[in-house]
Order: sequence, then C-alpha cells, then structure tokens
Amino acid sequence: MALLYCLNATTVVHLIKHDFITIEEYARNLLGRIEERDSTVKAWVYLDPAFVISQAQALDRIPRDQRGPLHGVAIGVKDTMNTKDMPTQFGSPMYQGHQPGFDSSAVAILRAAGALIFGKTTTTEFTVTNSGPHTINPHNPHRTPGGSSCGSAAAVADLQVPVCLGAQTGGSIIRPASFTGIFAMKPTHNAISTEGQKTFAPTFDTFGFFARSIEDLQLLADVFAIKDDELPRDVPLKQLSVALVKTPMWPSAGPGTIAAMKEAATILQNSGAQVEEVSFPPEVNDAEALVRMQNIITNGEAQAAFLREYRVDKMNLAPEIRSIVENTSNYTHKERLEAFDTYANIRRTINNLAENYSVILTPSAVDEAPLGLDDMGSAVFNTLWTGFHMPVINIPAFTGAHGMPIGVSLVAPRFRDQHLLKISLVLSKLIVKT
Amino acid sequence: MALLYCLNATTVVHLIKHDFITIEEYARNLLGRIEERDSTVKAWVYLDPAFVISQAQALDRIPRDQRGPLHGVAIGVKDTMNTKDMPTQFGSPMYQGHQPGFDSSAVAILRAAGALIFGKTTTTEFTVTNSGPHTINPHNPHRTPGGSSCGSAAAVADLQVPVCLGAQTGGSIIRPASFTGIFAMKPTHNAISTEGQKTFAPTFDTFGFFARSIEDLQLLADVFAIKDDELPRDVPLKQLSVALVKTPMWPSAGPGTIAAMKEAATILQNSGAQVEEVSFPPEVNDAEALVRMQNIITNGEAQAAFLREYRVDKMNLAPEIRSIVENTSNYTHKERLEAFDTYANIRRTINNLAENYSVILTPSAVDEAPLGLDDMGSAVFNTLWTGFHMPVINIPAFTGAHGMPIGVSLVAPRFRDQHLLKISLVLSKLIVKT
Repeated sequence: MALLYCLNATTVVHLIKHDFITIEEYARNLLGRIEERDSTVKAWVYLDPAFVISQAQALDRIPRDQRGPLHGVAIGVKDTMNTKDMPTQFGSPMYQGHQPGFDSSAVAILRAAGALIFGKTTTTEFTVTNSGPHTINPHNPHRTPGGSSCGSAAAVADLQVPVCLGAQTGGSIIRPASFTGIFAMKPTHNAISTEGQKTFAPTFDTFGFFARSIEDLQLLADVFAIKDDELPRDVPLKQLSVALVKTPMWPSAGPGTIAAMKEAATILQNSGAQVEEVSFPPEVNDAEALVRMQNIITNGEAQAAFLREYRVDKMNLAPEIRSIVENTSNYTHKERLEAFDTYANIRRTINNLAENYSVILTPSAVDEAPLGLDDMGSAVFNTLWTGFHMPVINIPAFTGAHGMPIGVSLVAPRFRDQHLLKISLVLSKLIVKT
Repeated sequence: MALLYCLNATTVVHLIKHDFITIEEYARNLLGRIEERDSTVKAWVYLDPAFVISQAQALDRIPRDQRGPLHGVAIGVKDTMNTKDMPTQFGSPMYQGHQPGFDSSAVAILRAAGALIFGKTTTTEFTVTNSGPHTINPHNPHRTPGGSSCGSAAAVADLQVPVCLGAQTGGSIIRPASFTGIFAMKPTHNAISTEGQKTFAPTFDTFGFFARSIEDLQLLADVFAIKDDELPRDVPLKQLSVALVKTPMWPSAGPGTIAAMKEAATILQNSGAQVEEVSFPPEVNDAEALVRMQNIITNGEAQAAFLREYRVDKMNLAPEIRSIVENTSNYTHKERLEAFDTYANIRRTINNLAENYSVILTPSAVDEAPLGLDDMGSAVFNTLWTGFHMPVINIPAFTGAHGMPIGVSLVAPRFRDQHLLKISLVLSKLIVKT
C-alpha cells in the first residue's frame, strides 16, 4: 500500500473500518510522503512525527463501537486555530511557541469524530498580510499557493494529508484551492463555530476545509452537522439552472479565468443544463463601492480584534496590522454603520437572486497563481461571497496559460450547503477533467 | 485606610499613582472584605488570595514609567472568559478545573493596562441557563443578583472589587446591574473583541463591564480604545432631548419599573431636559415577533456554538442547551434568515430613531430582583438593545416595593459610546440618590 497517501479521506475511512489498514500504517505512509516532499513544499509550521504515530496508535486501540465517522482521517489544521497538544502561532513572531492548551471548537469536534490531528499548516500573519510563509505551490515551486490558508491548500494538493482546515475572511480558502487545484468548501457563515480560531472580522470570518473530492467535503460537512431545511433533491441535468455570475469584479478577471468560466458554461450547457448570465442588480453593481464597504467593515472589526496584540507587543505586529488598529485609513464609524447596514441588505438581495437558480457559477480567482511567493494573489472574487454569507465550493477544473490550476466557484443560498454539495458532485463530474 | 474596598477604581488609580497606598495594601484590603463577605455572597468561583498578593507585589515593583492607566485596579473576570493563570469553567461541570492557559482578548488588554486580575466570578452554565450558581444579591440574600453575570454584579455591588467583566447575549449585564444597584455598560457590539470568551450567539454576544461609578466605566471604555467619530460635546440640560422608550415589552413591566421610569422622566423634565415618549415604528412594535426573532437567531447560532460540548460530553450539558443543539424548537433556516435580515433592518431603523435624540431612557429590568435563586429574572427589556448593537448603560437610581434596586437604561446610537458616557454622567447625577 505504498500509495496510501494518494487516497481521499472517504476511502481511508473505509479501509480503516474494514481493517485493510491500521491508522499507524496510514500515518507512517503520510509521514513518508511529507518527509519526501515538505522540504520543498513547506506546508507545515508544526509537525511532530513521533507524536503523530503515538496518536495513530491510540486511535488504533479504540474499540470499534466507540469510533466516530472520521476515525483515523489525517487532518492538517491552519495555524490560526487552537490545538491543545501543539503550538498555535498565527503566523506571528509574537506567538512563537505559543501553546493555547485548548482545542478550537472545530478541532474538538473533528477529534471527537476520530480525526487524527496531524499538525499545523502555515498561514500569513493572523491571516491578514498577503505574504510571509515560504510555502510553495505544489504545481510549481516558483508560484504562490495563495493566502492566507497557504499551508492547508498546499498540503492537500501535494497529497500530504487528504483534508486540511482553513478560514476565510476575504478569499483565504477558495483562492488557494483554485491556485493549487483542489476542492474546498466555505460553508454558510456561522454554520460552524469559529471559537478558538483567531478573530479577524467576525462578520466575515468563516471556517471551512480543503479536500481532494466532493465526497470528502461532504464527510466533513456531515461531521459538523450541517443541514439544510430540506433534504437536497436530485436535480436532473435538464432541469438544472445555472446562473453565470461574472460579478462586478469581472474587469479583474485574467484570460485564464475568462476562459475557465466560458468553458464551464459551455460544458454545462452541452450537458443539458440551462445556463443564464445573471448580473447583480444595479445597487450591487459598483465594484469599487463593494470593495470599499468590505474594507470598512473588516478593518473596523479588525481594529478591535488586534487591539490586544497592539497593546501587548505592537512592534512585533506587521505594519499593515498596526495601520488597521491605528485606523490610518481614517474610516469613520458612520461609514462603518452605513457599510454594515447596506451590506446586510445586499446579503438578502443576492440570496433572493440565488434562490431563483439551482446554483451560481462564478470565478474562484483572478487567474492562475501569480509568480513568486510575495504576492499571494487577489481575493477580489471571493470577499463578496464571504460577506454575503453564502456557501461556496471551489471546483478545480481548468488550467491556465502556464499549466497552473484554475478553479470555478459554485455558490448556493445561505444554509443550502447540502444542496450545494449535491449539485457540486454532479457538476464537478462534468467539468473536472480526470 | 480600612475602607479602601469602598473606593472606586478611578480613586484607587489616583492613590496608587501618588503613593498613598501600595497595590499590595489595596489587594489585602479587598481580600479582607471578601473573606468577611463571600461565604454569604458567593460571587467567586475561583480566587486564590496568595496568588492575588503575589501579583499585587509584582505590580508594585513595576517602574512608574512603565505603568498603564489601570495600574493596580482589581478586576473580577466572569468565568466565561479565558484567563492564563486561573481556571475557566464556564459554569459547566464539563469544564471543571479547565485551564485554557491563554487570556481572552479583553483580559489581556486589561492586564497590559496594569489591571490586577483578581479572580473568576460565577456565571450560569455557558451563560445560557437561568439558574445554577448560589450567588446571592448583596442587598438581600433571599433574592437573585440576576444572570448570567451574577458573580460579577454581586462582587461589585458588595464592594469586593470595584470593577468586574461581563458579557451579554440577552440581558446578562444590564439586568444584574439593575438587580444589584450598580452601574454597568454594554458597549456597541463588536467594539470590544469577544475572542477567548465563550461563544453563545455571535450576532448578539457583547462584552461589557460593571462598576460603581460612571467614571469607572469611562476608565474601562478608554482602555478599550472606544472612540466616537467626534469628541462628545457638552449638552446643556435645556438642550437635552430624552426619548422615553417603553418598548413593545412594556406590558411586562412591574410596578417598580413603571414607577422608576416615571420618576426618572419627571426628574429629567424638572431639570430642564425635554422628555418625549417615543414608540417604535409599527414594524418593530410586535413584542412577540421580536422575541421570536431573537430566539431564532440566538438559538440558531448557539446550535453551532455548543455542538462541540454536545459531541464531547453531551450528558454533562444542561438539558436546555442539549435542546438547542438538537433544535427541539424546530426552527428552520428559512426562519433564521428571515429573522437575521429583518433584524438587520430593524437595527438601522432604531438607530436612526435614536439619532434624533440626545439619549434614550428605557427600562433595565422587569422590576426588582425576584425572590429565590432559581429564577434569575427576565431579559425581556435588554435583548432587543443587544440585538440592535446599541450601547447601553445601567443607572442604578431607584428602589422597588421591597427596597431592592431598580435601574434604568440609557441608550445611544451605535458607536456613540463616549457620548453615552458623557450624557450618563450628567443624568446620573440628577437621578441617582446619594
């Protein structure tokens, strides 16, 4: 079983359940892959092989009838989420060696389901900065994996673990998934608790996960008890209506994304789905105004979120985070309230729009992953959906001019995560080339 | 200086600054008061006198030029907020002896300002249940201090420490302040980070504090860098306009609260202020609908917030919290979204209404603290302001039929916390009988 590390979580669960492999064997296999690859990829900020093995052995000893649905699944945790038995350093020099000693809510839920918490993956400083970690894109070491969940995306894309955790305030899950060619899900806002995860901007902060298949996203969503009001129904392709939403950010789209969107639409159309290009209503169609509102809300909330670090050790805080706390942009509370209330209305408007279609198809990123590790790419196509609180899944379907992955996003109304998973399973089979 | 424990934080800061007292002296004096009183009051769930003294001594050794604005001020922390050097038990048997090892954001900010973190005050289970701790109301041992921040309110009211921290999702700050006859402030939502504080319902969860004077609330608000867009101006009483807002919950008001509101209005009017009774617009005037929306939003968010505890140790969770996670009320996501979006609109509506007046005067509680410790009182007059995200200050001005305290709330538009503090200082001087 030399290639265990290639397997998806769903398969691994099956193999462990039916005693084809032990968790220790599986863990050793992954560790071998990591040993071989991670000096290049640099996805992990903390990983203790001996500790992983001891945890795997402990999981192997758990009686069959006490095992949860993720028993033995290796999961990497973004280093902005507290873990009781590993350091949590937030990509910040201020927290070097920091040991919170208590799991974040999501990690505890996964652990209770039997997950093997493998290690901590790299992140940019508090998920705010757009450079920092030396993590590379597994598809090309000269390109970024995207931020801020860079390590999580890279580890999954590089077959080091099948699942990693991430968080998205702008585009920190969907964009790196697009850049590294993997699946990822940003569920409905607050559908999963962010407790024990570093706060950036509560109105936007969303917990999510990376995997290499929709089945694995489904596995995680179920563990987190994500439910729609109704069981999602099968929708025959002929009855499927896809809203092609280029968004007001479309002028930012590069040739790779333009081509990907076109190709996705064509494939879906040829498969019998109705694809209709849909614009946002006029009041949501001003890209500059949207971006400004997003900045005002997230900066305003981040000002309170990082006051602690500012007070405790300001000089060890990235200059852009210091600027946020000092409000050097001079945003007023009046602007913040206006943005907050206007965004609340937009949220409803776009949700209503989405209710008219089976699913929204929209870009995941501007284009391929940029060259170099200093610019981790733009979140311009992601932040709006984060702010709308709608569930998003990245489908890693296409490639760009340099052979790098380009994903497209599928989006559903809030709290229709299970519906989105179901549709994504069907549509990804059509558009992902295998 | 036998009565040091009677002093407010602002005075204590002054005495320490000018070397009239050492922090150790001060701490010993408070410990003496607590020793004498707390077997009756039972405000503390954790307090280690030797550790308090060692911390006080350490603060005494800090050079004058490295001291912060709260240097030496004793602060009690509600036991739902993480503290690095004390247990944090959330009022839950599941977390007995639990040591998170890392301060919540607010505690870290206070510590950086020089506060002497004294101990942990009692709370109901995860702030959700409405009974539990044996903490009594210092004004009458047969009456509740109110929940969920019962220990914090009781400790301040009983002169055990000048300041305590609290959190409010429904009425967990303002109501116990009213019941125990002290000042308290619930600032604008998300003006202070709730990171490291147990999550209940993020859209409502708000951090705040208890004290025995407006000056002390001001001291804390400044440490948390709470700023309005403009410096608050002096408003001469003759130009002061007070909106008397009985709220749609008014039928719940008992005789004590009815009398308190009337008396407050009369005093203000006689002092030259314009007092005008103001109703909510029709769409916000249905008490039942408001309460239902609040329940739907907070229960929905709590479902995710307590999934962790449910999965880890369900049988040690209060039945009402289990019910929330199991959604035995059968709230749908559709209702949740409708409530969420409608509440967002109401938030704007009521904020606009508040902008037309200098301040809103509204009830803090239904009446005096109820008899017994099992019913910790109703939050019906508080939850709406929590959901509106508007800053609220309790003014402990009146007494009820049994001689127990009854407060009134002053409320300002969002992010006008400093304005509210300024107005509260003026108005409290008129209405608080000393």
